[in-house]
Amino acid sequence: MTWQQIAAEKKSRQLDSVPKEWLSSDLPSAEALNVIDFPQESNVLSALDLEITESSVAGLLSNLALSKWSAVQVTTSFYKRAIVAQQLVKIFVDRALARAKTLDEHLKTTGQVVGALHGLPISLKDQISIKGIESTIGTIATIVPMFFSKMCSGYVSLVGQFAEKDSVLVDILESLGAIPFVKTNVPQTLMWPETFNHVFGRTTNPYNRSLTSGGSSGGEGALIALKGSPLGVGSDIGGSIRIPSAFCGVYGFRPSYNRIPYAGCVNSLEGEDSVLSVLGPLSNTLDGIKTFYKAVLSKEPWLKDPMVIRKRWSDEDYNLIDHGNGKKLCFAIMWDNGGSCTPPSLIDWVPHNSAEMTKTIGAIWNAGAAEDFEKATAPSGEPVIASMGLLQEDEAPLFRPSSAGISAFELWQLHKKKRDLRQEYLKHWEDTVSQTGTGRPVDAIISPIAPHTAGPHGSMKIGSYTMWLNLVDYPSMVIPVSQVDPALDVKQPREEFYSTEDQENHELYNPATYENAPISIQVIGRGGEEEAVIAMSEIVDEALRVAKSKL
Amino acid sequence: MTWQQIAAEKKSRQLDSVPKEWLSSDLPSAEALNVIDFPQESNVLSALDLEITESSVAGLLSNLALSKWSAVQVTTSFYKRAIVAQQLVKIFVDRALARAKTLDEHLKTTGQVVGALHGLPISLKDQISIKGIESTIGTIATIVPMFFSKMCSGYVSLVGQFAEKDSVLVDILESLGAIPFVKTNVPQTLMWPETFNHVFGRTTNPYNRSLTSGGSSGGEGALIALKGSPLGVGSDIGGSIRIPSAFCGVYGFRPSYNRIPYAGCVNSLEGEDSVLSVLGPLSNTLDGIKTFYKAVLSKEPWLKDPMVIRKRWSDEDYNLIDHGNGKKLCFAIMWDNGGSCTPPSLIDWVPHNSAEMTKTIGAIWNAGAAEDFEKATAPSGEPVIASMGLLQEDEAPLFRPSSAGISAFELWQLHKKKRDLRQEYLKHWEDTVSQTGTGRPVDAIISPIAPHTAGPHGSMKIGSYTMWLNLVDYPSMVIPVSQVDPALDVKQPREEFYSTEDQENHELYNPATYENAPISIQVIGRGGEEEAVIAMSEIVDEALRVAKSKL
Repeated sequence: MTWQQIAAEKKSRQLDSVPKEWLSSDLPSAEALNVIDFPQESNVLSALDLEITESSVAGLLSNLALSKWSAVQVTTSFYKRAIVAQQLVKIFVDRALARAKTLDEHLKTTGQVVGALHGLPISLKDQISIKGIESTIGTIATIVPMFFSKMCSGYVSLVGQFAEKDSVLVDILESLGAIPFVKTNVPQTLMWPETFNHVFGRTTNPYNRSLTSGGSSGGEGALIALKGSPLGVGSDIGGSIRIPSAFCGVYGFRPSYNRIPYAGCVNSLEGEDSVLSVLGPLSNTLDGIKTFYKAVLSKEPWLKDPMVIRKRWSDEDYNLIDHGNGKKLCFAIMWDNGGSCTPPSLIDWVPHNSAEMTKTIGAIWNAGAAEDFEKATAPSGEPVIASMGLLQEDEAPLFRPSSAGISAFELWQLHKKKRDLRQEYLKHWEDTVSQTGTGRPVDAIISPIAPHTAGPHGSMKIGSYTMWLNLVDYPSMVIPVSQVDPALDVKQPREEFYSTEDQENHELYNPATYENAPISIQVIGRGGEEEAVIAMSEIVDEALRVAKSKL
Repeated sequence: MTWQQIAAEKKSRQLDSVPKEWLSSDLPSAEALNVIDFPQESNVLSALDLEITESSVAGLLSNLALSKWSAVQVTTSFYKRAIVAQQLVKIFVDRALARAKTLDEHLKTTGQVVGALHGLPISLKDQISIKGIESTIGTIATIVPMFFSKMCSGYVSLVGQFAEKDSVLVDILESLGAIPFVKTNVPQTLMWPETFNHVFGRTTNPYNRSLTSGGSSGGEGALIALKGSPLGVGSDIGGSIRIPSAFCGVYGFRPSYNRIPYAGCVNSLEGEDSVLSVLGPLSNTLDGIKTFYKAVLSKEPWLKDPMVIRKRWSDEDYNLIDHGNGKKLCFAIMWDNGGSCTPPSLIDWVPHNSAEMTKTIGAIWNAGAAEDFEKATAPSGEPVIASMGLLQEDEAPLFRPSSAGISAFELWQLHKKKRDLRQEYLKHWEDTVSQTGTGRPVDAIISPIAPHTAGPHGSMKIGSYTMWLNLVDYPSMVIPVSQVDPALDVKQPREEFYSTEDQENHELYNPATYENAPISIQVIGRGGEEEAVIAMSEIVDEALRVAKSKL
């Protein structure tokens, strides 16, 4: 079979697995760009389905524990909504209702929930492995069959290669009572900030289908924005949780290295240990993020994945003991990083070595990426994708592999550079103690996620607002704020630019094209301060809610 | 100047810095192999000097805080003993009495100690940088002058290159009231388990000068055994704290990666981030180890070194909450790792993948080591040392660079191998739950540090008892047990061997050669369990004390 045939066969198999009664027959026309409200308007979802899928994670868990809603009901509702969503934005689902039934029976019989995530459907970025009944080795070892199909990093060559066992995170989520229920789309190689591959095609932005969903966790971003999943898990090596979260208007959290177990997942650039990819949650509510993070740590993941740091959830950190107990916090706003943001942007952090950090992380990825991509595409003959543009003939952005690779000794020199950049940034942060008036350095930084909102497909080329955080390893929470309003967010005339890149970015913006694109910020803390970042994000989120209510 | 002239000039400068009244005039003859008691017998140390230098760390800190002994007195006593020690085992010292005086005045004036290590002299492995008054850039920025000279990883090319600032650990130790007072010898390249270099020569074993002190922290091991320092800091990338601790009969602790700040130190293989070198303490008492570890963490080193994990000292972990509160602990003894130990060895841990782990860590070091060593020796013309033997013509051991280097992509493949080995070992440990009867997996492993005690110079070629722990990143505490007694530790006849290496190791042993060599064990815990390993080591140490008292 050619790679095109393999991809077509896989796509067809995927579509056949969807129950026909869950498909909507009155899809919006291709001209309709904003489809965010379509699930409510479709003929598929009942009033109860809508009530369930519009609930917060806390609301869902509470009603599940009280047996007001069964796990089967909740999972079914999210399936229906996810499948409607899939028809619009190319998300790919299967089901796990048998597991939901088991959970319902357990609660009925014992009166006890299985764990902190009892009955909660959870969507997973496609690289997070689940042992499936479709496995070519023919064994079924999970408690109940699941119909997940495995797409593996967006490579055609991985179609048909079913995981032999669950990833550690899936084991932990199931032990907590969660129901992994869909896997979501990714770009080929995973190393793109948009989402397109040769198997399932493109994931678009539900607020404006002419715009990108971001990537590489673009399937998660779009699905959660459409409320087809209450909680999802993505991965982030340069912005891959934060960019789709921001572009799709949902909450998304990049924890520090080695906190959430990654063992057993499929990945691109495997063995690239210099800048680690991390798993993290996406959700429509901050409580979903906190619930996920705290629940996973409660299962002592360091006893299942040797890379995970032995470190429990800290109520002290969550109560901001290192931040004046949360009183008189001082946030720094990073307006831009030396390449200004198109409107609407956000509200003085002095950026430091931004270009150097972006360059170093790019060089680390490139150390072996070309050979990695070549080895992954060679078995099927699939070409390596050179652009996320609609025509796929745009120039490749700077972060694509630009060299055939370097030696291990040369990579060690990059590690020294990385270490020195991290040391300088720590000092940069510590030195703010002279400006805050609190006796502490700045508590957190508030920053854009990109120098623009979601843009047209293939336009996302500047990773410098997210990538530096992967290099210094700071946790970051994306918080949705608003949406582009062409009447309000007019193009500001500018005469001076930081750089050619900055000018090109400015010229790209026009209010009509970006209509309805979500606007978001990220709240950035210091390495290992996950709990404090969650707490400070709650404070920022509440302040935004109050401010918006007064508009 | 030739590299020989540079080295000779440096050594002469070093000797000139020692006050003549602290030199002993009645050195033992070259035939005297066991010199461990010489400091007591020399004409240099007073009764008070002896009382001070024979005290535990807890005893020293208590008498310093009570002003029974001044910091100047304590530091002077240790200097005198260290300098006597240096004459025997080639340790290299300087002084910091002015700092001791400042501490004494602070205590007298305020009635308060400066910190948890008030007045305690601390020895440092030579790679731990201290800003010195001899600096070629001519500035003195430490509070008081210190006369430390910098030898930097045992390379001639680094003589005369003085550190521009203190390493983070030195800053922290000084903020705790400690007095860094000597720097100690290392092998060229640091990547040897013995201690010899072209500048200062060889550090021998004080219990038997025909035997090695171990390495690469051999200067620390020998100095502390001679009680020329109450507490020292070494580094460990493959056994470099544990081997000299074991061979010299002192306590030594290898913590997990990124707990003790390494920033600002000189190093070999810089940028080799796959298997991280760690700093850790050596002492004559376990309380010294615990005091150091807890005190350093109390200063939040993650705010000074970006690589340090944000993780406080845990009393819960120290109280063994994950180990049945310390009741009914189950230890596993690893008798050997598939290459049996010459007597005396220790008193059933099943080794797992031992050879594969040793091979993988060796391949990671070799990825860029040849180029690293070449670049470090080229400026002076000094040759790379090929053997630690007295004649330097022995065959190089297996862990010396055996290749010109590999590509970054090839290194990534080694990282996958390393990850898989760590995952397998975690399962191997977890699976012991079926054998312990405690409901928990084994609490700790007790193991040899090498398949022999300290041997003749140049004989230390098997790193497989220590290197695997650097790969899986488990904390390990070395505990001294006994010494070789030729009457007791006779050679056991053996007919069958695991391997040629095993047979060679067996043949090397004879009781007379190894007379008086210290015998030690290591107590091994799981990643991140530093506090629990300290607590379990206290239990083992006490059990050994009781057992010995009944002999």
